[in-house]
Amino acid sequence: MSTDKEKDILEMLIKSGEEHYHNVSVDVVILGYHDRTMKVLLQKPKFADAWMLPGGYIKRTNTTAEAAAIVLEERTRLKNLPLYYFNVFSKPGRSRGAADKITEDMRKVGFEPPKDFWMFDDFITIGYFALTEFSRVEPSGDYFAEECQWFSAYNLPEMMYDHKEIVNSAIMSLRYLISFHPIGYELLPDKFTLPEIHSLYETILGKKLDERNFAKKLTNIGLIKRLNERRNIGAHRAPYLYVYDKEVYDKYVQDNNVAILGGFQE
Amino acid sequence: MSTDKEKDILEMLIKSGEEHYHNVSVDVVILGYHDRTMKVLLQKPKFADAWMLPGGYIKRTNTTAEAAAIVLEERTRLKNLPLYYFNVFSKPGRSRGAADKITEDMRKVGFEPPKDFWMFDDFITIGYFALTEFSRVEPSGDYFAEECQWFSAYNLPEMMYDHKEIVNSAIMSLRYLISFHPIGYELLPDKFTLPEIHSLYETILGKKLDERNFAKKLTNIGLIKRLNERRNIGAHRAPYLYVYDKEVYDKYVQDNNVAILGGFQE
Repeated sequence: MSTDKEKDILEMLIKSGEEHYHNVSVDVVILGYHDRTMKVLLQKPKFADAWMLPGGYIKRTNTTAEAAAIVLEERTRLKNLPLYYFNVFSKPGRSRGAADKITEDMRKVGFEPPKDFWMFDDFITIGYFALTEFSRVEPSGDYFAEECQWFSAYNLPEMMYDHKEIVNSAIMSLRYLISFHPIGYELLPDKFTLPEIHSLYETILGKKLDERNFAKKLTNIGLIKRLNERRNIGAHRAPYLYVYDKEVYDKYVQDNNVAILGGFQE
Repeated sequence: MSTDKEKDILEMLIKSGEEHYHNVSVDVVILGYHDRTMKVLLQKPKFADAWMLPGGYIKRTNTTAEAAAIVLEERTRLKNLPLYYFNVFSKPGRSRGAADKITEDMRKVGFEPPKDFWMFDDFITIGYFALTEFSRVEPSGDYFAEECQWFSAYNLPEMMYDHKEIVNSAIMSLRYLISFHPIGYELLPDKFTLPEIHSLYETILGKKLDERNFAKKLTNIGLIKRLNERRNIGAHRAPYLYVYDKEVYDKYVQDNNVAILGGFQE
């Protein structure tokens, strides 16, 4: 990309201050599960040496949830993935250094940002998370997010600002959520074995769960049901297959959907 | 108060733009329970004809939770009441009319606000709720919130902006929260009867609950325990008294405290 083109983009950014809310942004923790692994999608800005969460400013014509959905779609190409809001991050000074960083980055392409550039101000950010099966997602970067890839959610690289804290807060919220809200539907094959759903929950919760009690609980509440069908995975090994009872599952989701959750604020 | 004094206060407000985040505020739904009744604390601005939620702008030296705690204490004189973050409200145009309203109010005391007054801009608001026993609270107004009083939470008066929606969203969140999080501790006498705790839950949930199953569930999980003590409330009527098991109660609260909840975003 030519430097002129870059300068045009930067000029556009400066002017876009009127279109955007100031002092408030969204950050999206995109969590990916696959075969006992939890990952998180991170991006590296054009000139930076550190990773950060996909996020963005909020157009005055959008809600915060719409802004988060745009970020999610840009990075994963997935539409209609449920987004959960889970926390607000507002520790004073949380984005300290942002102005210096942006200035430095812009100067690298010979551009001097204005002193009162709207992006230089302090921002409170609204955290959202989404959960997907990461083998189905091709991370997608763009001009400002040149690199974009999956990282282990439990072994994060160096990250900008308070973004590590935001990831950890999202994981805690996810753990809480799956205690009473079914969320595995899109993360498992249509027909799955008990060890598969058991691993999903163990990976998300980050702890061992008694396999027998776990299965009993899920079948007792009617969330999953056993098929008269087995999967052959070797000599003498043919575990039963299970499916989610979509009607029960949807009822749980719907019952919870009308209510928005709150959390203790420390 | 003299008009000069009022003008001084208004001048100070205009200058305070530098101290505050722009485009983001907090609103606090203070819910009060007492004897089968759920109320919400509302305030009426100095010159306005409509009620609104206690709320405010956020100082750049505070977190959003601190800003909410300040509002809560100003209106109830209560410190350390748990605050729950439950939703963000950002529908474009949600505070439409705010600029005209503020201008009109200020002109009544002969004051002309500047065209670019920071409070005239669109604001996204972070919703918090708190729950208290309303007979213990003396609502407390101030210069900007001249009137402040309890209203039935299920029969709200005309309210400004989207504040009715914010109250309803808080109630839905509270209903969800009490399904898995103990919150009744401060709302009941130390020793209470089953009908009392049953009424509390029915009032909050806004529906009938089977009394026997309800009591069984709470005692089974160990949250409440029966004393060898009865309350005499009339001939042949002496129901057993119960107490919360504080250890179990605190464990539930603490387990949940580490996790911030999320909700589906519609």
